[in-house]
Amino acid sequence: MNFEYHNPTHLIFGAGSLARLGEAASRQGKKALIVTGGGSVKRNGTFDRAAASLKAAGMAFAECAGVEPNPRIATVRRGARIAREEGCDVIIALGGGSTMDAAKVMAAAFYYDGDPWDMIYHGQPAPHVPTRALPVITVPTLAATGSEMNMGAVISNEETKEKSFVQAECLYPVVALVDPELTLSVPKDQTAYGVCDIITHVTEGYFNGVDGTPIQDRFAEGVIVTAMEWGAKAVADGKDLEARAQVQWASIVALNGWVNAGTNGGFPVHMIEHTLSAFHDITHGAGLSVVNPAWMRFAAAHRPAKFVQFAERIFGLKAKGPEDRDGALQGIDRFEAFLKSIGCPTRLSELKIDDALLARYAQETLRIIHDQNGRLPGRPAMTEADIAGVLRSAL
Amino acid sequence: MNFEYHNPTHLIFGAGSLARLGEAASRQGKKALIVTGGGSVKRNGTFDRAAASLKAAGMAFAECAGVEPNPRIATVRRGARIAREEGCDVIIALGGGSTMDAAKVMAAAFYYDGDPWDMIYHGQPAPHVPTRALPVITVPTLAATGSEMNMGAVISNEETKEKSFVQAECLYPVVALVDPELTLSVPKDQTAYGVCDIITHVTEGYFNGVDGTPIQDRFAEGVIVTAMEWGAKAVADGKDLEARAQVQWASIVALNGWVNAGTNGGFPVHMIEHTLSAFHDITHGAGLSVVNPAWMRFAAAHRPAKFVQFAERIFGLKAKGPEDRDGALQGIDRFEAFLKSIGCPTRLSELKIDDALLARYAQETLRIIHDQNGRLPGRPAMTEADIAGVLRSAL
Repeated sequence: MNFEYHNPTHLIFGAGSLARLGEAASRQGKKALIVTGGGSVKRNGTFDRAAASLKAAGMAFAECAGVEPNPRIATVRRGARIAREEGCDVIIALGGGSTMDAAKVMAAAFYYDGDPWDMIYHGQPAPHVPTRALPVITVPTLAATGSEMNMGAVISNEETKEKSFVQAECLYPVVALVDPELTLSVPKDQTAYGVCDIITHVTEGYFNGVDGTPIQDRFAEGVIVTAMEWGAKAVADGKDLEARAQVQWASIVALNGWVNAGTNGGFPVHMIEHTLSAFHDITHGAGLSVVNPAWMRFAAAHRPAKFVQFAERIFGLKAKGPEDRDGALQGIDRFEAFLKSIGCPTRLSELKIDDALLARYAQETLRIIHDQNGRLPGRPAMTEADIAGVLRSAL
Repeated sequence: MNFEYHNPTHLIFGAGSLARLGEAASRQGKKALIVTGGGSVKRNGTFDRAAASLKAAGMAFAECAGVEPNPRIATVRRGARIAREEGCDVIIALGGGSTMDAAKVMAAAFYYDGDPWDMIYHGQPAPHVPTRALPVITVPTLAATGSEMNMGAVISNEETKEKSFVQAECLYPVVALVDPELTLSVPKDQTAYGVCDIITHVTEGYFNGVDGTPIQDRFAEGVIVTAMEWGAKAVADGKDLEARAQVQWASIVALNGWVNAGTNGGFPVHMIEHTLSAFHDITHGAGLSVVNPAWMRFAAAHRPAKFVQFAERIFGLKAKGPEDRDGALQGIDRFEAFLKSIGCPTRLSELKIDDALLARYAQETLRIIHDQNGRLPGRPAMTEADIAGVLRSAL
């Protein structure tokens, strides 16, 4: 268990925190680029409140609206251009994971003369790893991706039908300003997909990481049970501020390194989902909800012990021992049932995806990321046939 | 649950990491002040390996040896003077919690012309809050205080018989270089006291924090069960590197903010123990082992629910409901039995402390820290009689 951890993001958490945006931003610069998504922040007043806080602190700002749910590299190019033309010196992401991810890459593209797509890992290695970026302040309006407090971003290329990631130290937001009140208006389905995203961030490291990480296991289990309990409440009553706050806290810690530190695991479920999103422009969390249980059944057949632990600690089931495959499968069944109960899809058909391109999805996933044996990193590492088989089992 | 979190320390964790000290230090400066404790690092070769790593990286260094188990302000003054005279630009703490704490305050004292004791909270407010410090690299040789990755330090004043703390953003170590191999030679008793210290860091926030922190609760429980399981192994076989590594990871996360973020709790057990240490120069972890169970019984009488949760989740006991005081007490009994089982004291008499000064300890604790009603912060806030009563119950 040799590893490094560093996360310099300053977190400001709590209901009403949006009012502190101006104070936080004015410590970073004089003119902000506010990056937003499809327009909900305009309709529900969040944008105006953010703008008022900036103005009160003497900040000017420009706008880059319209980041797509699967944020496109063309939008990143547009945002970086606006930031340069307008002379912005700080970027504020006011939206969900896609908005935050796009804003991070815009911040690095600001200093990069080449095409920002060079920074995205799409075939190995990425042509350019960014080392410098404008300061980014994340203000999430959805609890899901954890992008608010980490150094990752996922970007799609609509021309090449690729969706992939970048991770770089310079992409850590300088401030994550997390106000659970901003998530009160998130619709039921997006809330549920966010809960699935949160849980999947944790299950990836839990099931794919190295052995001998008892604290990380406990932390992961803590996030999962809490996200399930409070996520169901947030889906049932979107106005439940406590539920929104607990889910948002789960979102942050699920992917800021606290749970995964030292686990060194692959993210196979995410990688497979990225391919589906690239081809079909589906919501990331909805795609994960289909792929994750199917992947779990595949992985449990190879290595049931961790899935037995999952069944016992998350669902209180009693298995017959670490090699009890039936006990492992019962836990996965319960997990899938939970996803259904909050309204998440668990079959590809619900996403209107059929079996026409299964081999292609597998090839594309492996083309973007593979180990030295040509397999998708994870436990177990997956061949093209493995990936296609998992997807087939989820049709 | 409104709070902020920020921890800029770069953590390098793993067996063999000591060899990277020179690389890490040479990024921070050209000449290090190496701060050490009673001499074990000299006897067991750790100092020589650290020095060799620095030399290989082209670093010069000076030394400040002899930091006491309860580090004294006189030693802080001495270290700061050496750092100035020798022109050091980075401080390396190579030792246990006392060494790391002294090194942090030396780093701030380097830039402060007044007496470093001004920075220690001893009656409210502290005369000087430091805002600038030399970069500090912590290299812990004991798993206990968590000082390696936080912004706190505890210093004693041998003249005034005070022991108190400072917390300031500038005291975050720039690098925590944590090599579990360095703890392999820690004797059984110190190993056990460290385990108690780790667990007590977590129980303070768990029992004294605000309500409605389900993830923090799960994280705390994860640290406690892991520290108990692997702590017992490390005490039983000090050469068990995996046990040492797990305990050291528990030490870090117990007090780097990951467990306590948003709990906003007091640290009454620590505050009471600090007074005992100030008067009797006992080992901090040993003092905690006496005070914590006694405090738990006092607090459980006022608010059993959280102690029932503790009994159920940590020890698998089944209580009759959240108001079941007997169920709560059974969990505390089990916790105390665990402390005894690893060789920690649970009575003041074992520390050679009698009832002569109980009222004085209580007064001193409250003099150093109290809320606006003159009580010791915690749940419940404690009067002088409460503190004396807890100590009397532990005679």
